[in-house]
Amino acid sequence: MRANKIKEAYALKSANGINLTMLCDFYELTMGNGYLDAGMADRICYFDLFFRDVPDSGGFAIAAGLEQIVDYIQKLHFGPEDIDYLRSRGIFSEAFLDYLKNFRFTGDVWAVPEGTPIFPREPVITVRAPAVQAQLLETYLLLEFNHQSLVATKASRVCRAAEGRAVMEFGSRRAQGIAGAVVGARAAYIGGCCGTACTVSDPLYGVKALGTMAHSWVQMFPSEYEAFVSYCRSYPTNAVLLVDTYDSLRSGVPNAIRAFNEVLRPLGITSCGIRFDSGDMAYLTKQARRMLDEAGWPGCRITVSNSLDEWLIADLLRQGAKIDSFGVGERLITSKSSPVFGGVYKLCAVEDEEGAVIPKIKISENVGKITNPGFKKLYRFYSRESGMAEADYICLRHERVDDTRPLEICDPEARWKRKLMENFTARELLEPIFLGGELVYRLPTLEEIRARCAAELAALWPEVKRFENPHGYYVDLSEELMSLKDAMLAARGRAPGKEEKR
Amino acid sequence: MRANKIKEAYALKSANGINLTMLCDFYELTMGNGYLDAGMADRICYFDLFFRDVPDSGGFAIAAGLEQIVDYIQKLHFGPEDIDYLRSRGIFSEAFLDYLKNFRFTGDVWAVPEGTPIFPREPVITVRAPAVQAQLLETYLLLEFNHQSLVATKASRVCRAAEGRAVMEFGSRRAQGIAGAVVGARAAYIGGCCGTACTVSDPLYGVKALGTMAHSWVQMFPSEYEAFVSYCRSYPTNAVLLVDTYDSLRSGVPNAIRAFNEVLRPLGITSCGIRFDSGDMAYLTKQARRMLDEAGWPGCRITVSNSLDEWLIADLLRQGAKIDSFGVGERLITSKSSPVFGGVYKLCAVEDEEGAVIPKIKISENVGKITNPGFKKLYRFYSRESGMAEADYICLRHERVDDTRPLEICDPEARWKRKLMENFTARELLEPIFLGGELVYRLPTLEEIRARCAAELAALWPEVKRFENPHGYYVDLSEELMSLKDAMLAARGRAPGKEEKR
Repeated sequence: MRANKIKEAYALKSANGINLTMLCDFYELTMGNGYLDAGMADRICYFDLFFRDVPDSGGFAIAAGLEQIVDYIQKLHFGPEDIDYLRSRGIFSEAFLDYLKNFRFTGDVWAVPEGTPIFPREPVITVRAPAVQAQLLETYLLLEFNHQSLVATKASRVCRAAEGRAVMEFGSRRAQGIAGAVVGARAAYIGGCCGTACTVSDPLYGVKALGTMAHSWVQMFPSEYEAFVSYCRSYPTNAVLLVDTYDSLRSGVPNAIRAFNEVLRPLGITSCGIRFDSGDMAYLTKQARRMLDEAGWPGCRITVSNSLDEWLIADLLRQGAKIDSFGVGERLITSKSSPVFGGVYKLCAVEDEEGAVIPKIKISENVGKITNPGFKKLYRFYSRESGMAEADYICLRHERVDDTRPLEICDPEARWKRKLMENFTARELLEPIFLGGELVYRLPTLEEIRARCAAELAALWPEVKRFENPHGYYVDLSEELMSLKDAMLAARGRAPGKEEKR
Repeated sequence: MRANKIKEAYALKSANGINLTMLCDFYELTMGNGYLDAGMADRICYFDLFFRDVPDSGGFAIAAGLEQIVDYIQKLHFGPEDIDYLRSRGIFSEAFLDYLKNFRFTGDVWAVPEGTPIFPREPVITVRAPAVQAQLLETYLLLEFNHQSLVATKASRVCRAAEGRAVMEFGSRRAQGIAGAVVGARAAYIGGCCGTACTVSDPLYGVKALGTMAHSWVQMFPSEYEAFVSYCRSYPTNAVLLVDTYDSLRSGVPNAIRAFNEVLRPLGITSCGIRFDSGDMAYLTKQARRMLDEAGWPGCRITVSNSLDEWLIADLLRQGAKIDSFGVGERLITSKSSPVFGGVYKLCAVEDEEGAVIPKIKISENVGKITNPGFKKLYRFYSRESGMAEADYICLRHERVDDTRPLEICDPEARWKRKLMENFTARELLEPIFLGGELVYRLPTLEEIRARCAAELAALWPEVKRFENPHGYYVDLSEELMSLKDAMLAARGRAPGKEEKR
């Protein structure tokens, strides 16, 4: 098939959505073909997805993206146009292309549920699958998990800064592409936003779409006053008027009050709103609140929406700004101050022909970059007394934590830091999602995910939630896992320059 | 229709791609309904899309995204499930929903071609359409133009830093969502990258997909040497080996040389490659180059790929690093150091019932945020002598630049800065894309766009292309446009607190 024919087939297909199976790094395919050549295509591998640094140097991140990952895995396949394209590259064997024609996911996946606070270096997704499959999943799993966790984490920060006031996600126009906006609105909702400007995210995910008017509405009418009256007539129960087109306090707020008096008051409506999109929001909102109250509109809510993030919101509230809700745009939807979530996907074990699990480790000169070997479990320990999360605990799969007895845990990077866990409950965080290629997980609703996020946040000590210099939460390794890691490092240390043999 | 039925319809649809018509800020729809209520739905409006600040404080940006915008405009429509959703919100009139059922774009669009260097405050897209249509386009036009221009601009910086060496886009796993990766690879190619790791962008757009192996490939084999030999056997003509899994200089490079000697040398193949993904790339590449040359592999290319951006690349080259190509990931695909492109979409004119164009202006206390009123044209002036771009010139639509005579231009924000243009050619930059709803533009191929970008960059003085503190390029207004703007500002200044009357 000629290149332009392939492009045509893709153009047709892309009109109806691209095949995400092909959204993989090209090296997943060259490796897949190579594994088949080497007789290793079906060798069972274990990969951990984890991250090393929290965006904005925060204390934790919020896991998100699993629902889209499940959908992706269920739909994994290569269509005829995909095979045609790959053949056209001239480097893949026909045996591999045949292999791809019948490709579907047959492995196992464990994952931390969406909305869960997560910490650096702990496995948040584990994949067990034949080599070609496990490798192929890498790019999309990282992309989706990284993107949604980034936005959910930022949204959580912004919403915590707002201290219970509503935060609306307003960033579609500055998002990095379609999914940046649409899926980003979903992630922002998980993190605590109450709705989005992005219309399609409402019917698609149930994230309520919000918004009333732009400056152009005001400019389209002969006067600001007429623009406001017209809007109040069309939307008497949802009249949020943008008051900063000309002069916020001398024109915008007085005209809004006139329009409310003229249209809403006779209807007995007392709830309405104004929005500032420029100017000093501490000064403007205090003045506007006084003007609205004096005019008999205490039920008029004040929204602000210009270049907001967690820092500016916290500062405005500290200065006594009179704000009822925030519209947050580019700084949330792109996580502008920290726009990359650095999740990685690393081989942690393989199975030999007898099915024995052989741990693998990735060495680095940077100690923090050395991976945790083996097939693992992740626990979160809660105090029975306070109900608060005290530590996370990573152990090997066959280990079992007995939370009826005290347990001494220790920091893998500072072994003298030991902590005795007593009177605690241990909860496993990695839930089975796919087993033998079959979905075994009930996908929670978005409302359930958002509620889980709020509940789990409530179980984190305030010290961990601080924006600046948060307290380091314990993420510890079991004695057995630590011993395994030490032994593997020692084995490599004894043979510098030699390849790893296991 | 109940909410869950709507959600089901969307789930089904989203499996095949969402209707981008619904990717609009909700306020576009509330305003649309309001315009219809007010009898203004079909009032002809003019909107300019422009930006105010160049990412990374650079001297210019690269326009990108028009092809996707054209596709979006051609497919604009509301399906039954969209109407059902909107009806379920309970705030839109049946008259408006009927209006949407027959919705299609009937207006005009002018735009700067993709790949063109663009400067702050000049119109890069102008839309002339009935109010509801022109308003609806706002969100997606901004989203697509902002995203692609952001990535194309960053890619251009990174590629210029590489001084002719190949730059591969490797960022899919850290992109902000699916389009962040897939469409981002397209934009990076426009900006000068030679290919991408993102497989699907190859059949979809013709951006060559590249890549060979990850660390997991090396870890899967009993030894690094065996991993390299196996890869060379599968891909003798494209063997780029990742050499930093264990110890780059003591293990990786020697094993690569052994594998090349054993597999490639007998086949007469002299071209191959190694890649470093960690460590100090200046030191490592110099050592590796020496080792490869001494072993008789001068044709082995060296690629590096860890946390690169324009600054690090420039610094490595300054230090004499021996690098043939760069794989650039998260810092390019998210434009990490400046992840928001701040394009805006502002009303600049409306037509009265007789079709007379009435200019509109948006005032701001910040002088730089005051818009340029009216229906406008954009010229680029090139020196006939050097062929270099000397200035851009914004004028009203009916004005015509006569480039056979000298022309004095002046900086609108510093009027004493005057420049006499002589011996120049004037080229109009805004090309008609849609007229009366019909596409009148031949969409260039991606190769043509990339070539345009390279050619137009060659016509910019090096001073404008500097990364730090670039020389400010002239973007000037015609005398007539400046007089109009002055008069409109003066009219508002004379009547503080009053609404604008025109």
